[in-house]
Amino acid sequence: MSGPRAPGFAFKVHATDGHARTGVLTTPHGDVPTPTFMPVGTQGSVKTLTPAEVAATGARIVLGNTYHLWLRPGAELVAELGGLHAFTRWPHAMLTDSGGFQAFSLAERRTLSDDGFVFRSHLDGSRRALTPEEAMRVQGLLGADIAMQLDVCPPGGSSRQEVEKAVRQTTRWAHRCLQSRREDQAVFGIVQGGTFADLRLAHADELGALPFDGLALGGFSVGEPIETMHEVLSQVAHKLDAERPRYLMGVGTPSDLVRAIGAGIDMFDCVLPTRNARNGQALLRTGRIVIKQARYRDDPRPLDPECDCPCCSEGYSRAYLRHLYLAGEILVLRLITAHNLHLYGKLVAEARSAISEGRYAEFAKRWLERAEPD
Amino acid sequence: MSGPRAPGFAFKVHATDGHARTGVLTTPHGDVPTPTFMPVGTQGSVKTLTPAEVAATGARIVLGNTYHLWLRPGAELVAELGGLHAFTRWPHAMLTDSGGFQAFSLAERRTLSDDGFVFRSHLDGSRRALTPEEAMRVQGLLGADIAMQLDVCPPGGSSRQEVEKAVRQTTRWAHRCLQSRREDQAVFGIVQGGTFADLRLAHADELGALPFDGLALGGFSVGEPIETMHEVLSQVAHKLDAERPRYLMGVGTPSDLVRAIGAGIDMFDCVLPTRNARNGQALLRTGRIVIKQARYRDDPRPLDPECDCPCCSEGYSRAYLRHLYLAGEILVLRLITAHNLHLYGKLVAEARSAISEGRYAEFAKRWLERAEPD
Repeated sequence: MSGPRAPGFAFKVHATDGHARTGVLTTPHGDVPTPTFMPVGTQGSVKTLTPAEVAATGARIVLGNTYHLWLRPGAELVAELGGLHAFTRWPHAMLTDSGGFQAFSLAERRTLSDDGFVFRSHLDGSRRALTPEEAMRVQGLLGADIAMQLDVCPPGGSSRQEVEKAVRQTTRWAHRCLQSRREDQAVFGIVQGGTFADLRLAHADELGALPFDGLALGGFSVGEPIETMHEVLSQVAHKLDAERPRYLMGVGTPSDLVRAIGAGIDMFDCVLPTRNARNGQALLRTGRIVIKQARYRDDPRPLDPECDCPCCSEGYSRAYLRHLYLAGEILVLRLITAHNLHLYGKLVAEARSAISEGRYAEFAKRWLERAEPD
Repeated sequence: MSGPRAPGFAFKVHATDGHARTGVLTTPHGDVPTPTFMPVGTQGSVKTLTPAEVAATGARIVLGNTYHLWLRPGAELVAELGGLHAFTRWPHAMLTDSGGFQAFSLAERRTLSDDGFVFRSHLDGSRRALTPEEAMRVQGLLGADIAMQLDVCPPGGSSRQEVEKAVRQTTRWAHRCLQSRREDQAVFGIVQGGTFADLRLAHADELGALPFDGLALGGFSVGEPIETMHEVLSQVAHKLDAERPRYLMGVGTPSDLVRAIGAGIDMFDCVLPTRNARNGQALLRTGRIVIKQARYRDDPRPLDPECDCPCCSEGYSRAYLRHLYLAGEILVLRLITAHNLHLYGKLVAEARSAISEGRYAEFAKRWLERAEPD
C-alpha cells in the first residue's frame, strides 16, 4: 500500500517537469512547499540562528538529530517541556532522523546486531542501545512531525555483499519501526543499496510496499564519487513511489540539489551551508568565498551583490566580514550562515517556480553553468 | 573655558534631581538621551549582536576600542572603508577610547615614558608607539563622534605619589591631545586621581579649564573596593563641570550605574553585560542566573518573566538556554547578551524618567533593595 498515513500529514504534487516535481507537504505544523531544503538543527538549534532567522531564509522544515538530543538534554526532558517544537521555539515543520547514522559515526565502541546498535555515548561514555523500537520511542518523545526509521548505512566503498546485508537489516527494522511508531507522527522509510542501482530499485519496491508516509534515500554522499551518486540517483529517484515525498538524506552542494531535483527528489538536508559558514566559507551562485583570504582585505563589496539576505542587504563588506572572522567574532558566523541558508532557500524557491513553469531543464543548465565545478 | 567645541556636538541637561541629571547628547550621528550606557564593541562588533539588535536594547551610542582596531584590521583600512560607522554598519553615535588602557593591560613589553607607551602587539609582537598624537591620529582615522584623550591609568592600590605622577602626565597629554585633535571630532578629557578625592577634584578643575567636549573619570574599577569607588564618586562626580557630559569609564554592575547616576554621572561603558553573557550569566533586576546550574535543568520559565527582550519574550525557557549553553551552541550567547543589554537599556531609560519626574532617590532605593548584593 502507499500514501500518507499519519493524521494531519499529506503530500500533493502540483506540477511535474521531466522527473522534477513541485508540490506541498502538509504537516501538523504547516505546509512545506517542495522541493525543500531542511536546515540542520543538530542539538535543537540551527547553529547561530534564531527560528525567525531560519524561517526568513524560506525554510519551512528543519531537521533535528535524535542521537544528539537523546544524549543531551535527553528525550524525556524535551517531552516534559512540551516536545522539540516548544523547546526550540520553531513553529514550522520538523523532521528527526533515527539516530542510527550518528550512532554509527560518532559513538564509541559501537556494535551492530540484528537488534540494533549498542554503543558508548561520545559525551559521557554511558552505554546505550539503539533498537528500532528505541529509535521510534525517542523520536516519539521529541515529537517532530516526521520520524525516520532506523536503518543500516554501509560506508562508501562497501562490497555488494555488505550492502545487501545492510538492505536486509534495514527492511527488517522498517517493519519493527512501523509497528512501534507513534500513531500521530509521520514515518519515512530509508532505501539503502549503496551505488548498486539494482539493489536500490529492489529496496525501493520493498519499502514502497510498506505504509511509510515518505521514502528516503540513505547512504549517499558517504565517500562515493559524486558522479556515481548522480548516476545512481538518475536511475532510482524517479522510481520511488510518486505519491509520496522523496527525501535524499545528507546531500549536498547547491549543484547537487539542482541535479537531484531534476532526478525527482523533493526533500534535502545537509550541514554544508551551516558548517561551511562557520569555517568562513560563503556560498555564491558562482562559487565560494573563503572569507579569510587576503584578497578580501579591503574589498568593499557585499558577499554577493545579487543577494537579499541580511548580510548582503545590510551593507556588510567582505573586508568587514574578513576582519570579524580573523578576530574570532561570532557575528560573522551568524551572517555567513544566514547568507548560505538564503542561497539554499532561493535555490529551492527558484526550482519550484521553474518546475511549475515547465522550464526546469533550462534553470538547471543555467545554474550548473554558473556554478564552479565541485 | 568650557562647553562643547566640535561641530554637530552639544550637550543639554533637561532636568536634575539631586546630583542626578537627564539630558541629551547631540552628535553628528544622532541624539543620545542621558544617562546612557554604551555597549562595548571591542573589535568593531558588540559581541554576538547585529547593530539593529544593539539599538533594540535602547543603546544610541557604542564604544569601540582603539587599541584593538589599530592592531587589527588597522585604522588606515577602516578609514579607507569609510570609517568605523560605515565599516561596522552602526548608524548611531560612537565613542572610541584612546587605546592607553589596553596598551597598559594587554600589550607585551610595555614601557611608559613622557612621550607615551611603547609596546609589542599582543597579536603579532610588532613594536608600536602610542603617543598622545598617535592616539588622536588613530581615533581620527576611525572617525567616531567622540575621541578620548590618552591618559595614564594607575593600577588599583597605587601610592599617592604614583597617582600624582599619573595625574601630571595625563594633564600634559591632555594638552597634546587637544592640539592634535581632528577638528570635527569631540574629545573628552580623563580625570585621574585614584581613590584620592582631593587629587580627583584638583584634576577635574585642571582638565575642566581645557576645551574638552566632555569629562571622564578614568581609573575606577581597577581593583579598589567598590564602596571606596562610590564614596569617591559621591564627592567628585557632581563637581565635574555641569555644562559637559560626565562619563564614568569601565563601570559597572546595574547597581553601580544606579548609584553613579545618583552621584551625577551621565555616561557609562562596561563589558560586564556582554562578557558575563558569554560566560552564561544572565542579569536580572533581582540577581543573576548562572545558566549552567543544574537547578535550571527543567525550568520552563524565561530568564525573567518581567523582561520584554527577544530572549524572554520569545518563550525560550531556562531549560532550553541551559541545554544550549552546555551543548556549546552560539545561539544562547546571543540571547543572553541581548537580555543583559536590554536590562542596561531599561535601567538607564527608567533612570531618565525618574530624574525627569523628580523621584530618582525612590527609584534608586527600590532598585538597590531588589538587587542582590554585589
